[in-house]
Order: sequence, then C-alpha cells, then structure tokens
Amino acid sequence: MVLASDEMLGCRLERLRMDLTRLDLDALVVSHPPNLFYLTNFEASAGILVLARDGGVLIVDFRYLSSAEALLSSPLAPPHLEVTLVEGSYEETICTVAHRLGAKRIGVEARHLSLSRWQWLEQSLSGDLLPTTDLVEHARMVKDEHEIEVLRTAGLMLSGAVDQIVALIRVGRTEREIAAEVNATLHRVGFDRPAFETIVASGPNSAFPHAHPGERALQHGDLVVLDFGGVHDGYCVDLTRTVCVGRANPEVTRLHSAVLEAQTAALAAIRPGVPASSVDHVARLVLDNHGLADAFGHSTGHGLGIEVHELPRVGRQRPAAVGHDLDDPALAVGMVFTVEPGVYLPGVGGVRIEDDALVTEAGVEILTEASRALVVR
Amino acid sequence: MVLASDEMLGCRLERLRMDLTRLDLDALVVSHPPNLFYLTNFEASAGILVLARDGGVLIVDFRYLSSAEALLSSPLAPPHLEVTLVEGSYEETICTVAHRLGAKRIGVEARHLSLSRWQWLEQSLSGDLLPTTDLVEHARMVKDEHEIEVLRTAGLMLSGAVDQIVALIRVGRTEREIAAEVNATLHRVGFDRPAFETIVASGPNSAFPHAHPGERALQHGDLVVLDFGGVHDGYCVDLTRTVCVGRANPEVTRLHSAVLEAQTAALAAIRPGVPASSVDHVARLVLDNHGLADAFGHSTGHGLGIEVHELPRVGRQRPAAVGHDLDDPALAVGMVFTVEPGVYLPGVGGVRIEDDALVTEAGVEILTEASRALVVR
Repeated sequence: MVLASDEMLGCRLERLRMDLTRLDLDALVVSHPPNLFYLTNFEASAGILVLARDGGVLIVDFRYLSSAEALLSSPLAPPHLEVTLVEGSYEETICTVAHRLGAKRIGVEARHLSLSRWQWLEQSLSGDLLPTTDLVEHARMVKDEHEIEVLRTAGLMLSGAVDQIVALIRVGRTEREIAAEVNATLHRVGFDRPAFETIVASGPNSAFPHAHPGERALQHGDLVVLDFGGVHDGYCVDLTRTVCVGRANPEVTRLHSAVLEAQTAALAAIRPGVPASSVDHVARLVLDNHGLADAFGHSTGHGLGIEVHELPRVGRQRPAAVGHDLDDPALAVGMVFTVEPGVYLPGVGGVRIEDDALVTEAGVEILTEASRALVVR
Repeated sequence: MVLASDEMLGCRLERLRMDLTRLDLDALVVSHPPNLFYLTNFEASAGILVLARDGGVLIVDFRYLSSAEALLSSPLAPPHLEVTLVEGSYEETICTVAHRLGAKRIGVEARHLSLSRWQWLEQSLSGDLLPTTDLVEHARMVKDEHEIEVLRTAGLMLSGAVDQIVALIRVGRTEREIAAEVNATLHRVGFDRPAFETIVASGPNSAFPHAHPGERALQHGDLVVLDFGGVHDGYCVDLTRTVCVGRANPEVTRLHSAVLEAQTAALAAIRPGVPASSVDHVARLVLDNHGLADAFGHSTGHGLGIEVHELPRVGRQRPAAVGHDLDDPALAVGMVFTVEPGVYLPGVGGVRIEDDALVTEAGVEILTEASRALVVR
C-alpha cells in the first residue's frame, strides 16, 4: 500500500495545528477513522488521536497496538506523535492523555462524537470540551499531491474495468450474480475492496437510485444501472454506466442522451472559483429543458477520497444545513468529486452516468474515462 | 429477502413502546440504521423513525421514498407507521413530525446521535430532548423466532463454505488473492455480501488479530488465520479457522490444541443465567493453564445479528463502561454470539478458532459446524 510520506503528514498536521491556534484550542480529539488515517497513515476501525499544538498521542487498543507501533517506527510515521495503549476505556485514556499534555481547552469532532461520549468526557475531563465542525474534513476536501496521484491511478484502474463489467450483462442472469462478478472484477483489476455495495438495478428497479441487487433476472428491454467503485491505497473511486438489454426503444434513447448531455454540461462547468452548486445547477437546467427536472431527485455529485461520500457536496444551493458551514464551497484546484446526473421514471426505469472529476487550473481533469454511449447488449 | 412478519414487527414496536412508557417519553428518535431495520424492515443507509406511544413516522429522503412506500403498502409493513419525505433536512423534519405528534419529551439514541445533531435539535425542538442508551440494542440482544431461523440458515451456509475456503490456501498465493476468492465463495454459497473485511493473515501477520489481507505470498510453515462471514437476509454470521501450510511443528500443534481446548470449554460453559463474562473467563482459564494468558488479548466473543458486532459483549468483567449499563448481561435463551479465543505470539504467529453460538434452554446450539481440527495444507 502506497502511503503519504512523513513530510506530507507533517504538512497535514501542521495545517490542523493552525486551526487549533485559530480556535484557541490546546488539543483536538480526532475520533473519525478516515480523519485519523489522513493525519497519521494509521488505518483501523478504532483509535483516537489527541493532537496537541506541539506533539500528540495516538491511542489504540490491543488489537492495533503492534501495527501502530510498527507504523510509528517506519519511515512513513507521522512526525512527533507517540502511541499509547488504551487503559480502561478509550474515554478514560483520553482524559489521562489530555491531562498529561496539559490541555485545558479541548476540541472534539461534533459530527462524529456521540452524545454518550460527549456527556462522559464533559463530566470527567478537567478542561473545557468544545465542539468543532469538519476541521479535518475541510482540509481533506482539497487533495494534495499524494492523494491526486493515488486517485488518478485508481481512476485508471476503474476505467479499465468498465468493458469487462458491462460484458457481464446478459439476459437471464440475476442482479446478485452480476454484482458478485462486478466485485470479483474489481479485485482482479487491483482494488482492495469495493468502495460501497455495488448497484445492479435492472428493469423497474433501475428507477430506484439506491437499489440493492436482488434475485431479479435480466430481461429483454431492461435498463440496467451499474454503479460500482473500488478502494485503492485507501482512496475511493466511483463510476456508473447504464446498459440497455436487447433493443433500446426511442424513450430509452431519449432519456440516455438527456442524461449524457446533462453530465457533459456539468463537467464542462467545472473550474476553480465557481460554487459547487453551479455544477449541479447546470445539470439540472439541461434535464429541465428535456422536461425531466422532476425525475432527477438526488444531487449531481459528492466528494471522493478516503470516504466515498465526503466534501464537497455538489448539489442544490440550500439554507445552511446542520453542522455544515461548508455547504457550498467555491471549487478549488485539487477537489475531487463525482458528476452523476440521473433520471428515474417509476415504471419505466432509470439512467445514470457517473464519472470522477478533479478540479485543475485549466478547469477539469476527468479521472475515469470509458465510453459513455448507451451500450446495448 | 425473507423479512420479519408484520406481527413480529408489531411485537418489537410494542416492546419499545413499553420502554417509552417506563421512561415517560412521548417519542423516541431512532436514527441507527440497524435499529431502524429491526423495527420496520426498512433497510437503508439513512432514514429516521420517530416512534410515538401510539403510531409513528418513518422519515426518508428522496432516494428511499419509493422503496419505503412500497414497504409500507406490503404485507410485511410495520403496523401503524406512516412515511414522510424529508423537507429541508432530516433535523428540520424531526422537529415538524415531533410537533405534529404532540411529543413533548423526546428520547434520542445517545450512542448514535452525533453531538451536532443533538445541539441543533436541542435548540430547535419545542419539547425536551432526552438521551437514552441502547433501548433497541437491548431488545435486539435476544433474538426472536424469525431471527433465529435466519441465523440458523446463515450458519449452515457458512459452515458449508468452510471446506471450499480452506482449499484456497496454497503456497505462493497472496493474502489478497485468497481474500478475493473467499468473498467470491461467500457470494456463491448465497450470501448477499461479506459481513466484514475478510481476514487472511499469514505467517508473521497471523499474530495481528485484525490484519488486512496484503501482498504477502503464503510460504511453507505459515500459520494462516482465515476469518470470514456473510450477511444473509440482513443477518451476520462469522467464522474463523486457522490453517497450517506444509508441516505443523510441535509449537504450532500445541498452540492450536490449547485454543481448541479453550473454545470447547467456553462453548460448554454457555447456558441461560450465567453472566456473559463467565464464558470469557472459562476460555481465559484454559489458556492460562497453558501459559498463554498474555497471548490472548481480545474478548472471547461478541453478539451477532443485524450487526456483526452487537450485544452481548462476551469479555472480561470490567467496571461500567461509557454508555453501557448492559456490559455483562446474564445469558438468556435466544442470545447469539461468537466464541473465538485466540493466541498471538509476535514473530511466531497466531491461532484463532471461532464459531457462532445460540443460547438455548438446554444450554447451547452451535450455529456453525465444520471441522475444528488443525488443517495442514
């Protein structure tokens, strides 16, 4: 697994420490595993980083002690951090560590910390506990060189799998069978795991944007939405194509070309400085011109990175949402997100086309490249 | 997918309503997806149930509206609930719904609700917001008839896959290749998806209880820990076997037979009424007799059901942990959990043997049955 260099980690930690200074915090308790991975290269389902203005402590439990110690003595170690083993519970250890670091004003990640943990820590910590929102997520929204390199490679890998995956479509096969083969294909081309539950939505099911693959066997005339992605070196990519089984009737052709037009226009609208919502707006406008605005109920896209859904949200402008002051950021060089307009007509079916875009100085670099034409099989 | 009957859902909802009465709550906001599935048959990554003493409202967003509506008009619908579409945000809709239901004292799930949501709701709701802990999880800890039937079937499916999976072990293959084939096997025998990231930990990696499968190729003399599970009809099963590649040296044989003895003793200790920690204690005692107590760092087991880790925890007795008053429950008929002692010796390797147990009147029914002898390949 290719990981960020120690220097890169140093930059990420330094940036976060500037947030601590700005917010007058002595320490930040980082509990969201993707944020932990971003800051330390430590990948696990548990573990907590107490980051101080100067140094910091990675708290892990028995299961992860050896791998955390191995990481911290490797050349790809996050600089100036130490590892400590949980004593009692994670919460008790946070208290011990905060005390040892002399931290009085301690930030927590409000969108990830549970109410239980908050209440327990508030009672037990000697210092003040302060909610923070998306500090690490905000940093993660703009990818650094290492991340762009990984995402580029992953995008190429995923693009290379599209033909094999489309070729799995055949009358009589069930959605579940095809989904299992999509997952096997993702492994074969080098992904560590699927980035989310693969969607194979056929016929009437294709009208559900988030259908689970089921026992339905493919039939002549079906639309089949194939939405799949993989995790490579810790980063997620995500792609959708819609396939028509047998002959495409004029209505299907019309829907597909409307969605393709919306996606093309949205991709072309990407450049630094414009609000993320403007990309959504462009896609929505095209579908509106085709009388399909109401059939497009989800957002145009979502950020991609360590998580398969992260900032920026590429959707409608909306009033400030809960816990997000970053709801509609201006696009910046280094942001990576999906562009995936779709239309869903109950009874008829659905069409979605999705690719992954990187914002560049020149405008956009599309990380996934595979034919977007309607495939008839 | 086989789902719980509407009557079964009715019982589950009724039981929870008794908790509402006991806690003098007018409504409970259920936000944890597994809890939502348990109470409503609605399976999605989002959605919120506002359960009132009389009726209740399932809030879903656009992505899930059609499937929620289809569910509620099906014979397997949760009784006396209605569906409503998110307006604005989930949080705003919770406020609208709570107001409409006339709820003044509103419980939330403290271990699942984020601090952000709590703060927003506290400011915006007209009633009182009250933290609750594990109300639904407590109910889920004891499986009902439907769940036992599903888990039995899933256990049989998993047991049937063991020989095929063990046969994947071969010198020269990498952990990742084998993990991908384990996943393909899980699909082939009928699972919807793996229940967690399959573990194939070979040689020195086998000393890490939670290793990720990597590029290491299997060598003669390796111990290989294979830990895998699947999701069937919404429920998780989980099994581990340890395989020796080539010849087993006496040390390996000794470790394996100590772990097998610990597992056998722990399984035999299961019966209604004893504390969950006593099962852990028995396993630990056996390993202690072999001088291996320090090599067994994790708990003996964990509950299985809609989640792959749920109540009961089968581990050491410990002081009350954060947000858990159910840390060491007495075993009851219908509880399902793993029994998986292991030993991990850095530099040497690890051995773990895991099966899934159901507590019965007579003591225990083992849901997974496949040879536990040390396999040498």
